[in-house]
Amino acid sequence: MTGPVPPALEEALKRRQARRSEYHGLPYVHYVADTPEVVRGTAILGGRVVFGYPHIGRVLALLQGLSEQFSAPFWAEEKIDGYNVRITRVDGQAVALTRGGYICPFTTDRLGDLLDLSVFDAEPDLVICAEIAGPGNPYQESAPPFIEHDVQLFTFDLMRLDRPSFLPHHEKTRLLERLRLPAVQCFGRFTVNQVPAIQEVLRQLNAEGREGLVFKEDSETNHRAKYVTSNSSIADIRSTTSNFLDLPAEYFTNRILRLVIFLREQGLGHSAELDQRLGAAFLDGLLEGMQRYEREQRVYYTYRCRLRTREAAEALLTHLKRAGGHKVQVVQRELRQEGGYWVLAFDRIYPGMSGLLGHLLQGGLVFD
Amino acid sequence: MTGPVPPALEEALKRRQARRSEYHGLPYVHYVADTPEVVRGTAILGGRVVFGYPHIGRVLALLQGLSEQFSAPFWAEEKIDGYNVRITRVDGQAVALTRGGYICPFTTDRLGDLLDLSVFDAEPDLVICAEIAGPGNPYQESAPPFIEHDVQLFTFDLMRLDRPSFLPHHEKTRLLERLRLPAVQCFGRFTVNQVPAIQEVLRQLNAEGREGLVFKEDSETNHRAKYVTSNSSIADIRSTTSNFLDLPAEYFTNRILRLVIFLREQGLGHSAELDQRLGAAFLDGLLEGMQRYEREQRVYYTYRCRLRTREAAEALLTHLKRAGGHKVQVVQRELRQEGGYWVLAFDRIYPGMSGLLGHLLQGGLVFD
Repeated sequence: MTGPVPPALEEALKRRQARRSEYHGLPYVHYVADTPEVVRGTAILGGRVVFGYPHIGRVLALLQGLSEQFSAPFWAEEKIDGYNVRITRVDGQAVALTRGGYICPFTTDRLGDLLDLSVFDAEPDLVICAEIAGPGNPYQESAPPFIEHDVQLFTFDLMRLDRPSFLPHHEKTRLLERLRLPAVQCFGRFTVNQVPAIQEVLRQLNAEGREGLVFKEDSETNHRAKYVTSNSSIADIRSTTSNFLDLPAEYFTNRILRLVIFLREQGLGHSAELDQRLGAAFLDGLLEGMQRYEREQRVYYTYRCRLRTREAAEALLTHLKRAGGHKVQVVQRELRQEGGYWVLAFDRIYPGMSGLLGHLLQGGLVFD
Repeated sequence: MTGPVPPALEEALKRRQARRSEYHGLPYVHYVADTPEVVRGTAILGGRVVFGYPHIGRVLALLQGLSEQFSAPFWAEEKIDGYNVRITRVDGQAVALTRGGYICPFTTDRLGDLLDLSVFDAEPDLVICAEIAGPGNPYQESAPPFIEHDVQLFTFDLMRLDRPSFLPHHEKTRLLERLRLPAVQCFGRFTVNQVPAIQEVLRQLNAEGREGLVFKEDSETNHRAKYVTSNSSIADIRSTTSNFLDLPAEYFTNRILRLVIFLREQGLGHSAELDQRLGAAFLDGLLEGMQRYEREQRVYYTYRCRLRTREAAEALLTHLKRAGGHKVQVVQRELRQEGGYWVLAFDRIYPGMSGLLGHLLQGGLVFD
């Protein structure tokens, strides 16, 4: 579909596939489920539609994956370990939408730090699809090794309001340059005959602890596929062990499988050093979690981020509590002014680990 | 209940909680689900009932677990890494029942090698609850390190036909001695104040790569709990990686959790060597599986066991095919006579790994 507001919106609201929300006096609707018309995450604000960012499939075997997925040359762009947002300006208000179509109070508050918002004067219909990454990220324990503090923005796609498609690569590049938008690194245009060159890029990314690549076909279909390095799989495991029982167990087994396929494809086999890092990824985090539980009777991670206003910090906490549902508990630790910002620290308490450790350390039985 | 045949048997058959089967002309019924009357695995043969072996809960935290679970002294017996059978003689025919209540063609065929069947002349109502373990086991890839070939039997409980309860410890011990039945090692009778002594036994078992302990209260309730060593958790992971996608992912995450709790309780922390062994447990097996897939387009494990008759070997294959359902494929590799036995080799093909590797190595996408 290409029209502005999806015709079956009322139907979707009734079925709870879409919900009405409000941000600082700006009412909006966002789709919390895929419908035949639009993908999950699509939002409607000020009568304009920001289409959802579609999921990108993963190839685990590079050579065969690229051959099977692409029938034309494709661009290889860096995949950044952060969270996905779509940024646009509607009725004079620049907002950042999460993957699920919520207006993100954190990103929206920090937009002025992340990019020059005058891009929307030049391009009023622009939708910037970007990854926000860094240790000052309120959503993830992990961050790319090359970002030392706070967060940064990396544009990887551009869209237009009311249109579900991405701008073609050449248009995107031209616009990124003209608008001086911070963007992910592009490693070039490849064909499936150039897999050794891509492998070389991946070896380098892996050595630097970076996440991987997204491939985008240079064609009308603009088909995509992603591929991650083995070190990123280990880092994922390490950074989510305190969440060990709240994530599906497949989260961990999938990453082990990706890691093995990466090793096999790179002809790397495995070394005692890699074995050790994989084992430590599990054991370090879990032992830390247990020690924490023994001291404080709960397993949690403390996030720290900074915002421009107290209201945004409070809205972020409200958003995190609502988005986590009954499962994850969010508890404010501190909120203080420092260097023109409000520094917010909060704990995310993992009920699965806390509950099971409580049961076990009280001597409970498990039947498994 | 204590009567011979459960009154609601016909009802259970109608509801498919119990099913009729037949072994070498011996008809029997076995319960494939728990019912209010009897536990899963209960079997009825020649009008006599062999009650199912109840599941034993696991404590993950030893000190707290023993304090919480036991209000009287308890015996500590070795837990052997094998499969559970109940052996009895009905109408002159000695049979071994699996956990699920099937007559096991392999164990039944080999009973004369595993124990002196004249025990049933002296004790016609006896039901021997035992673990069968060793590398010649047709059900498991793993085996205790102290069994070099074939299989051995280790009695851990005694029951009587038509009665759901276990004989008390002193009666069991007396009978085991009198009948010279091979049995699991008993490390003694402990109270919860003697946890350090139990920890010492566990450290020794762990160092020898043995599985763990089963604790049994020395009281009317005869309450039980089990506890495994960290090395047994690693060995479990190593021996099931070719089955990585056919087992629930929790199989692996549960073992990592057990391992961490064991380390923490033993005050061991983790060493680089342990990290390495955990990592290698995953990577060795998975890389082997991938190499096998690349050569042969399937992931499988070859089992080797020996039986006394060709008929028993064929019955075992039929049993394995039926018990595995549609999921696991069993393919005979060889069946030949050697030293008075029939040596059977068969492959168990793991469809999850074979299917996913096929999809991935053909370049398929996954959305995860």
